[in-house]
Amino acid sequence: MFVPGLIERKRDGGAIGADEWRELMGAYAAGAVPDYQIAALLMACFLRGLAREETAALLDGMMASGSRLDFAGLGAPVLDKHSTGGVGDKVSLVLAPLVAACGVAVPMMSGRGLGHTGGTLDKLESIPGFRTDLTLERTRAQVEKIGCAMIGQTPEIAPVDKKLYALRDVTATVECVPLIAASIMSKKLAEGLNGLVLDVTQGSGAFITDAERSMTLARTMIELGEDRGCPTVALLTAMDRPLGRACGNALEAEEAIMGLRGEGPEDLHEVTMALSVEMLVLAGEKDRARARARLDEALRNGKAARKFQEIIEAQGGNPAVVDDPALLPQAEEVEVYYARSAGTVRRVEPRAIGRAVVEMGGGRRKVEDAVDPTVGFVITARPGQQVHTSEPLASIFAKDAAGIEIGRTALDAAIEIGEGGATPLPLIEARVTAKGVERLTGR
Amino acid sequence: MFVPGLIERKRDGGAIGADEWRELMGAYAAGAVPDYQIAALLMACFLRGLAREETAALLDGMMASGSRLDFAGLGAPVLDKHSTGGVGDKVSLVLAPLVAACGVAVPMMSGRGLGHTGGTLDKLESIPGFRTDLTLERTRAQVEKIGCAMIGQTPEIAPVDKKLYALRDVTATVECVPLIAASIMSKKLAEGLNGLVLDVTQGSGAFITDAERSMTLARTMIELGEDRGCPTVALLTAMDRPLGRACGNALEAEEAIMGLRGEGPEDLHEVTMALSVEMLVLAGEKDRARARARLDEALRNGKAARKFQEIIEAQGGNPAVVDDPALLPQAEEVEVYYARSAGTVRRVEPRAIGRAVVEMGGGRRKVEDAVDPTVGFVITARPGQQVHTSEPLASIFAKDAAGIEIGRTALDAAIEIGEGGATPLPLIEARVTAKGVERLTGR
Repeated sequence: MFVPGLIERKRDGGAIGADEWRELMGAYAAGAVPDYQIAALLMACFLRGLAREETAALLDGMMASGSRLDFAGLGAPVLDKHSTGGVGDKVSLVLAPLVAACGVAVPMMSGRGLGHTGGTLDKLESIPGFRTDLTLERTRAQVEKIGCAMIGQTPEIAPVDKKLYALRDVTATVECVPLIAASIMSKKLAEGLNGLVLDVTQGSGAFITDAERSMTLARTMIELGEDRGCPTVALLTAMDRPLGRACGNALEAEEAIMGLRGEGPEDLHEVTMALSVEMLVLAGEKDRARARARLDEALRNGKAARKFQEIIEAQGGNPAVVDDPALLPQAEEVEVYYARSAGTVRRVEPRAIGRAVVEMGGGRRKVEDAVDPTVGFVITARPGQQVHTSEPLASIFAKDAAGIEIGRTALDAAIEIGEGGATPLPLIEARVTAKGVERLTGR
Repeated sequence: MFVPGLIERKRDGGAIGADEWRELMGAYAAGAVPDYQIAALLMACFLRGLAREETAALLDGMMASGSRLDFAGLGAPVLDKHSTGGVGDKVSLVLAPLVAACGVAVPMMSGRGLGHTGGTLDKLESIPGFRTDLTLERTRAQVEKIGCAMIGQTPEIAPVDKKLYALRDVTATVECVPLIAASIMSKKLAEGLNGLVLDVTQGSGAFITDAERSMTLARTMIELGEDRGCPTVALLTAMDRPLGRACGNALEAEEAIMGLRGEGPEDLHEVTMALSVEMLVLAGEKDRARARARLDEALRNGKAARKFQEIIEAQGGNPAVVDDPALLPQAEEVEVYYARSAGTVRRVEPRAIGRAVVEMGGGRRKVEDAVDPTVGFVITARPGQQVHTSEPLASIFAKDAAGIEIGRTALDAAIEIGEGGATPLPLIEARVTAKGVERLTGR
């Protein structure tokens, strides 16, 4: 394989074939192709794009570098959900136990927080004792036994994706739709799924802030999934404000527990239910209303909350947090934040909030950074809400006075109060399938 | 300096500033920036382009990484010529001694053959004993003493260029006009020149085969030279057939010697004279006709040939080759190649010839390859010539029967005989200066 020839072809707008991608990814995984050649190729891909067949070939090449889970003989449909990320997005912690409580197997593989967005693994690990570094073997056994496992990317799953992502991160080639889509799908399809639901976020708190590119990402991932026999559906959801009220790892774990007990914020509930309905439908439930009723029932009768307890227990955590969230780590300092003026809350800007959580110690600048689970915000102010001066809008949780100060400054910038109305994005704007786009605005 | 930020800016079509290029090139030269980041940046430069100011900033950054020659106080104008390369191009071996014999200082820094084109250093080194690895100090001393030195790129001159070129070679980022221009000019301007003449080749034997891109390259190098106080002129010359008759290192050295004695082929003489006139004019000669007369005189009275002897002697070679070219290394096997059919020579395709010389052992596939100086061709057939069957068209020089076979096959492919006329490019198509393009077609 003559790598400069492949780079040249992509540079000039040509396509790299399926066998070539497979051989290249195999050689890169094995260390036989240097980073600098892949870096040049990634930039050519970024600027020239990848056709549908080519993105699929790249995905296959990435998957061929690693192992796959196999749930043949499990006797239950296997599904997962993936979110393109946001601020305050604790949906996975509610959804995975909820859907598993309805008889669907959920081998959920999640990531850590990086940049301004939080990560499901960090939220789970705020539960004392909770381990996310399960082997594939143990993951499979746990899914067989209790229907769900919530783990991090293992070294066996698409190892070349990890190497590629690290390289993209330092060569300004992250924000490229086909590369993002292939990266996500290489991990998800390796879970051996019967179906996949995507939560594609849009707005300033999302990784991809542009609505059109969000839609392209959704379509690309759907194509990749469908072409490989994994029916895939996406919902486009709002990330122009934080989802729910809590932002920060332990605070979000607590809010997720409230959600599992039917006591969470309305927007978190709505997004979780909408995504869960799609999962049940993909799992074989023909009647959408019945899917929703089954989910409602699992929340009401406590099965969803108990399923989360089972998961926590199976992964070494303290299941008592579900009954008593005060067992979660608590911040040293708490301060209430009040409205500086009267008017309408025009915006609660999520990116500033997410960045402040990182700065307060609750997120990562580098992959190896440790995370303080206790810090963050609970923001009760919502876009469109009328407030009066000195009305409480949020609480700041920090480890010291300096952290409180960071939080206060961030809220000053993020919460905009003024005249006139607010124009937030619809919570769930569209449902995208292989057949097309169904607008859900007004919902 | 946050390198991914610079890559991102270039990726999105923005410009990198002068200070940023300088810092980046310095850090890269020092090993503080990894190859993979530079590779991604080079691909972004390739696909997004570099504006005039930016190419100049890159050039400055590359030059700042190394030393410069300084000929202040020499008392003679200092000039050089650069060719963008071709097959059979031995102009430098004639031009440098010829122009030096007319009182111009010529500190000529050349390259080795790579790909299908030959290199001046390899041709010089076919002269027994000739050394091209002079230090800058010795180069300066030799130019002061005899007016000319013919050397390779020293480690002190633009060291980052060497590193960048090696990286471009394996990342498909070589054929990018601003990168080529900055690479060439970073070396030439480090010679401390008062003027520079460029031989920009076009046609299938050139590195850049496209006429429009050749012109862009010429203009870019002229801009870079002029902006840095080095008046620069380019001639666009034909490389749709080999220049002269000889292709191969010792064969070309012999033909160059014939040229210095006024006995060389007409096309070699014309191109050499045209470039030399430009050099004398840049050196202060106001009258072009007088410049030509001075050059004619130096050829006729033997001063040019004697100057070459002085150079050879100063650099450790055997000066007797100028009087007796048979002292150059001779091939083991020689075979005459005859016309397969009667008709018009429609083409003598140079790239196939150049590749065959490499395959026969006379060029490099890798930088570290050794070169057999004896192999190559002397091709007397010219485009437009009428030939009859079995008329001799060329001689093949090889080290064994297998080499002869390679040569025969190459000539079969390269020399096209057929009906109708030939349409070779004009030998010297245009003269390009900072003021514009002067078409010379018909010359």
